[in-house]
Amino acid sequence: MENFTYYSPTLIEFGRGAEEKTGVLTFMMGVSKVLIVYGRKYVRNNGLLDRIINSLNTIGIEYVELGGVCPNPTDGLVREGIRLARAKGVDGLLAIGGGSVIDTAKAIAAGVKYDGDFWDFYTGKSEVREALPVGVVLTVPGAGSEGSGNSVITLEGGDSAHNVKLSLRTDSILKPRFAVMNPELTFTLSARQTAIGIVDMMSHIMERYFSNSNAVEVGDRLAEGLLMALINEAPKAMGDPTDYHARANIEWVGTLAHNGITGCGRREDWTSHALEHEISAEYPDVAHGAGLAVVFPAWMAYIAHHKPSKVAQLGRRVFGVEGRDDRSAAIEAVASLRAFFGTVLKMPLTLEELGIKDPDLDELTRRLHANKGETIGGYYRLTAEDTRQIYELMLAKSVEN
Amino acid sequence: MENFTYYSPTLIEFGRGAEEKTGVLTFMMGVSKVLIVYGRKYVRNNGLLDRIINSLNTIGIEYVELGGVCPNPTDGLVREGIRLARAKGVDGLLAIGGGSVIDTAKAIAAGVKYDGDFWDFYTGKSEVREALPVGVVLTVPGAGSEGSGNSVITLEGGDSAHNVKLSLRTDSILKPRFAVMNPELTFTLSARQTAIGIVDMMSHIMERYFSNSNAVEVGDRLAEGLLMALINEAPKAMGDPTDYHARANIEWVGTLAHNGITGCGRREDWTSHALEHEISAEYPDVAHGAGLAVVFPAWMAYIAHHKPSKVAQLGRRVFGVEGRDDRSAAIEAVASLRAFFGTVLKMPLTLEELGIKDPDLDELTRRLHANKGETIGGYYRLTAEDTRQIYELMLAKSVEN
Repeated sequence: MENFTYYSPTLIEFGRGAEEKTGVLTFMMGVSKVLIVYGRKYVRNNGLLDRIINSLNTIGIEYVELGGVCPNPTDGLVREGIRLARAKGVDGLLAIGGGSVIDTAKAIAAGVKYDGDFWDFYTGKSEVREALPVGVVLTVPGAGSEGSGNSVITLEGGDSAHNVKLSLRTDSILKPRFAVMNPELTFTLSARQTAIGIVDMMSHIMERYFSNSNAVEVGDRLAEGLLMALINEAPKAMGDPTDYHARANIEWVGTLAHNGITGCGRREDWTSHALEHEISAEYPDVAHGAGLAVVFPAWMAYIAHHKPSKVAQLGRRVFGVEGRDDRSAAIEAVASLRAFFGTVLKMPLTLEELGIKDPDLDELTRRLHANKGETIGGYYRLTAEDTRQIYELMLAKSVEN
Repeated sequence: MENFTYYSPTLIEFGRGAEEKTGVLTFMMGVSKVLIVYGRKYVRNNGLLDRIINSLNTIGIEYVELGGVCPNPTDGLVREGIRLARAKGVDGLLAIGGGSVIDTAKAIAAGVKYDGDFWDFYTGKSEVREALPVGVVLTVPGAGSEGSGNSVITLEGGDSAHNVKLSLRTDSILKPRFAVMNPELTFTLSARQTAIGIVDMMSHIMERYFSNSNAVEVGDRLAEGLLMALINEAPKAMGDPTDYHARANIEWVGTLAHNGITGCGRREDWTSHALEHEISAEYPDVAHGAGLAVVFPAWMAYIAHHKPSKVAQLGRRVFGVEGRDDRSAAIEAVASLRAFFGTVLKMPLTLEELGIKDPDLDELTRRLHANKGETIGGYYRLTAEDTRQIYELMLAKSVEN
């Protein structure tokens, strides 16, 4: 086990009616005027925004609104938020939504207190030393941003022809002070949105799981337990979107998948995220979770042949496969994961199913290694040649043989 | 899943050399003069205290020392600590030790800021509204006090003939601000101390596991994972006290077993703790963890016949038992748990092995229900008759038949 620091100070208020406590929680984080950030008009139309504003009013907290955050949130709205927050003198942020909304709120929270351009934090030119406190009302589980100190923002037309999508990671300064999580607020998510969130959660767990660090039994067991819980609950939520308990279990896994608890004491992997980011940068219509459903099994299939031990452990402990040796067990594990993504979650399993025809795999490979270095990955270092073969596997209907 | 609030703001600094950061962490909790609380002279003699004082000196933090905390800590040293803290004007506490030391530090932290008698907090006469911040350097894993807001103190001669042992539970005000955890500091624990700590951890997990709350898949899977990790690591630490990785995994489970993470969204049980507290109140030489090794399997054996479902789940998922129905699986689970406690951990399994001869079971039963009510327990409500039978089971070498 490696040395580690773990600090997760987000207060979780979980359950039916939790959003009624938003006002009190905002007050308790020391805020008197809050910038409410949200995405779709939906939040306004379904009455949630009104209920939250009511909760703020009750305790005398003033507010300013900023709606319109889109998936893969961009720098434009962040800049608008920073201007608005300064003009109105807000002293805290309240994000109502999922990862895109929360990440936008975090970017504003850091940017307000900084003299330079907020994008400096994302390029690494500057470090966040001060930020407004952020609270969250979660409506779209998956990204795990409600419990993390990270934020992913896209700079539009940054690299002339291409958008630049970068992530900012902080130890704790951007971790939300509280997260309100009422599973009923997720009943209206479509089956596809639900599935995308679940793939995202599983990927967050597995990116930490695939590690060369020795003797990480606690982290492995926590990760395997969270994966088993998702595999158990997913079919229920896919079958009945108003199954409260299935929604609750899934939403809670989403936070634990990405608040760092399963990563304690280990080096992490994050290869599949790198492979996927290159795809969704080139094809912006690709939803991150759907992309991961194609990428993760392909990566794992390749790894099953090159370094099967941890894939085999996942297979045996999570999917109950029995393969006579590590390689057989690993291959069965990949088949089980693909079956779960494809059959239970109805996710795409190939680039074509993802809507990408005739992809230029050489160009994807070239750009990935140009951005990330000659070799990438924690559990198994990929050369450009490895990467090219994994992208190739994403073309195939079946990767088992 | 029940509604819940989860807030665990303790920063964990984990690994080799972690204690070197004590000074910086104390400074970061805003403290300039600290009362160092510890137990055995051992901490002083082995150089740990010096290293920590050195770490405080480096950053200019003043300190006052209070040694001599004993197992089952009492009110006397708490009162002395409160006087000392006031006289010297300290603004924070630093506990170096295990649960007894941390619980004493918490009691002092709350008492210093209170005009009345600190014992009021334990009797429920008053509530902790203000407390000095507490930091921890953990040397004895098991009690989990480094991540909890609780403190257990004994009032000597409180109830004339009998001592009164009461626990104070707070939401967050007494949760340590940081916990320094270096597994090397646990190398000198004896096999017995190690085993007692592990039983305590397993009990913290199982007291939460046995719940009537429905649809708590995430909590169940986390609990089962932590139990499996302990079962995997315990023999290594018992066999080689300097096995760093085994010590590390066990110590980390100790915190997660009791910081609330496995209890989210469920009502908890705590029957075995109640049964055990009555024994160790009557027989003060009984170590809490050793008492639990006798109590928990006896309780579980009784429950296997009256409400087997969750015992069976534990058996199947944690011990891999195969019993054809819940009752058979539950009975096998009890046998597995007893085998683990007896054979791997070398713990007592009967009251006699615990050093108690000819116990007055009627009196134990009478006193327990006089203190705790006509029926006790969360998962299965025990009447006095049930309780009497469970105490009876603690006499038997084998409870399986």
